[in-house]
Amino acid sequence: MDRIGVVDTMFARYDMGSEAVDELSSCPGFGTRFETVRRTVPGFKDLGVAAKKLIQEEGCKAVVALGMPGRAPIDKACAHEASQGIMLAQLMTNTHVLEVFVHEDESDDPEILAAVCRDRSRKHARNAYWLLYEPDQLVRRAGQGVRQGFTDAGPVLTADRA
Amino acid sequence: MDRIGVVDTMFARYDMGSEAVDELSSCPGFGTRFETVRRTVPGFKDLGVAAKKLIQEEGCKAVVALGMPGRAPIDKACAHEASQGIMLAQLMTNTHVLEVFVHEDESDDPEILAAVCRDRSRKHARNAYWLLYEPDQLVRRAGQGVRQGFTDAGPVLTADRA
Amino acid sequence: MDRIGVVDTMFARYDMGSEAVDELSSCPGFGTRFETVRRTVPGFKDLGVAAKKLIQEEGCKAVVALGMPGRAPIDKACAHEASQGIMLAQLMTNTHVLEVFVHEDESDDPEILAAVCRDRSRKHARNAYWLLYEPDQLVRRAGQGVRQGFTDAGPVLTADRA
Amino acid sequence: MDRIGVVDTMFARYDMGSEAVDELSSCPGFGTRFETVRRTVPGFKDLGVAAKKLIQEEGCKAVVALGMPGRAPIDKACAHEASQGIMLAQLMTNTHVLEVFVHEDESDDPEILAAVCRDRSRKHARNAYWLLYEPDQLVRRAGQGVRQGFTDAGPVLTADRA
Amino acid sequence: MDRIGVVDTMFARYDMGSEAVDELSSCPGFGTRFETVRRTVPGFKDLGVAAKKLIQEEGCKAVVALGMPGRAPIDKACAHEASQGIMLAQLMTNTHVLEVFVHEDESDDPEILAAVCRDRSRKHARNAYWLLYEPDQLVRRAGQGVRQGFTDAGPVLTADRA
Repeated sequence: MDRIGVVDTMFARYDMGSEAVDELSSCPGFGTRFETVRRTVPGFKDLGVAAKKLIQEEGCKAVVALGMPGRAPIDKACAHEASQGIMLAQLMTNTHVLEVFVHEDESDDPEILAAVCRDRSRKHARNAYWLLYEPDQLVRRAGQGVRQGFTDAGPVLTADRA
Repeated sequence: MDRIGVVDTMFARYDMGSEAVDELSSCPGFGTRFETVRRTVPGFKDLGVAAKKLIQEEGCKAVVALGMPGRAPIDKACAHEASQGIMLAQLMTNTHVLEVFVHEDESDDPEILAAVCRDRSRKHARNAYWLLYEPDQLVRRAGQGVRQGFTDAGPVLTADRA
Repeated sequence: MDRIGVVDTMFARYDMGSEAVDELSSCPGFGTRFETVRRTVPGFKDLGVAAKKLIQEEGCKAVVALGMPGRAPIDKACAHEASQGIMLAQLMTNTHVLEVFVHEDESDDPEILAAVCRDRSRKHARNAYWLLYEPDQLVRRAGQGVRQGFTDAGPVLTADRA
Repeated sequence: MDRIGVVDTMFARYDMGSEAVDELSSCPGFGTRFETVRRTVPGFKDLGVAAKKLIQEEGCKAVVALGMPGRAPIDKACAHEASQGIMLAQLMTNTHVLEVFVHEDESDDPEILAAVCRDRSRKHARNAYWLLYEPDQLVRRAGQGVRQGFTDAGPVLTADRA
Repeated sequence: MDRIGVVDTMFARYDMGSEAVDELSSCPGFGTRFETVRRTVPGFKDLGVAAKKLIQEEGCKAVVALGMPGRAPIDKACAHEASQGIMLAQLMTNTHVLEVFVHEDESDDPEILAAVCRDRSRKHARNAYWLLYEPDQLVRRAGQGVRQGFTDAGPVLTADRA
């Protein structure tokens, strides 16, 4: 059976990992074609190596990596480093690792922030499934301004596509 | 038959991938000397590994990677990370991956933005073709201030070249 | 016997390495299941390669890397480079290296700064132990806003988790 | 016969590559001990992989990589990425790739800008030659504030060296 | 006999390499246990690959890499890239490369700047020696706020260590 990895952090202020795991469990083939493997690390700088271990030691064919950068300037620099680690993990393994970051300053309203966490975690979990099993779902939406967390931006020109 | 890869994103607000595929299909040797392979990924941070997979798993000899960074400061940081991934994909494979990014803030006019998307996507698709099959086209234009998306800047000195 | 590495710097203004070593010596299995190996390097840019050597030459299964970036802008840039080195050390070895940085400008009060050094060094030493021997401790705290150095931030929504 | 690579861009507004090739052709041993190989790529982000290909596929023992970053902030970010690619190309091949960047905002006067392009391209071409065949020329100038493009800065202390 | 590498630049405005070589020649075991190998490169972006070559082609067990970033903003970006190259050289070889950068804006007084160059070059040369042959010298100074170039900062708390 294939495996899809999910790794999140203790640092985040919303349990994004459980959302991703739950979404994947509702995708076609869950339990027959693929299963999920979950890990939690201290902070988002630990996500890169954790994702790489899920791929190379646990045999995951894709990974969803979730984190929540804080509001301070130093958090932005750290998020950049964390992203570089996730990027490297992908390039060293030829495997997609979907980065799901919700920045704490995306909203001052905890309800909205929680909703962003839920939506973005679930949509990227679905993207991981699509990348592995239904890539045409992605091609069909090419250039359509698709977003995760908030509503889609849509295409620049309304009548853009034939 | 050789293969040239094209990978774009759902995040972009213009279907840049189709422009690149269409341009390549008008280049000499299309269908006989080379064919195209298209992929779409969620966002531009997924382009690096997708390009590397096109090269190493699908046998592409060059890749055109297209994306559209948004207007927010965080989008600039992400674009930087996406670029680093594309850079690494090239260096790890000794294969050119032409980065085609149209920044959403290059114009406030959707018509102009769409025109930039079209022109830049097509010109870099043509550059990919040149790199593989007509490298002299590039040498001939060395230092000529050639641009994609907007008009050429031209050389610094008009009577520069002998 | 397993080994956990601890590497700190002469540049730091608090002996963070000793705190980490001491904390690890109070974890279950110390002296029977695992032992510690300590190194000190000049500055935090030397931590990355030192951590990698601890893993590949001394057989450490995890490393705690501790440093104290100064207050000047140049120190921030250097901290970024140091972090990238620690990130690379992890990805090149599939081994967790917990970065424990206390920025000198986190407090103007030396007593508070020392307390942050103690708390963060010890908590991340404990995290290293958890990653190796009790990973469920981490999963249990996923998304709970856990912090090191200062008090936990807690989850965004109080009644977030079922 | 040894080979020294020269790679420049269509984006640049001065034909820097021809200057470098011409300078190398005036160095001792040209045509007997070494020859030059020239390539042109679309923009400076393509220099890294092009240099690496010159080294690994064309057998070049050193490469001169020339580009001209534009005036906009985005150009600075791109120049940074281009530099990282050139850096990686060197480290992955144990071969010097001399980065010759002339920033378009170094002068508003086209004549001066062209002069900077000429001087910097030629001096770094000469440096490539020195690195391979006359390394003592470099040691002799250690710490002397040697510049390319503009006049030398000289040492901090006039009577510095014994 | 072991070898310790020293590499500096023509760009620097003080002969830092000679200071490092001289300091190493005064360390115990010079000429019997270890010797020095010196190289000079054009600028600090050439230090990374030069250090890696000293390690992998000349057999150096540690390297001291010295440079002097200028005052302009572009110099800061370049220093960052140079540092990343030195970082990579270390991680790809499991060998310490001590980065010794003196920023030209550390002082407006040439005498002070020269003194910083001397002190920092010599202290890091000594650190390279310690890393190889007397690592306990470093552990003994862990967290003591040791500096190179200027006076030590000392520990945060005077009575910090037992």
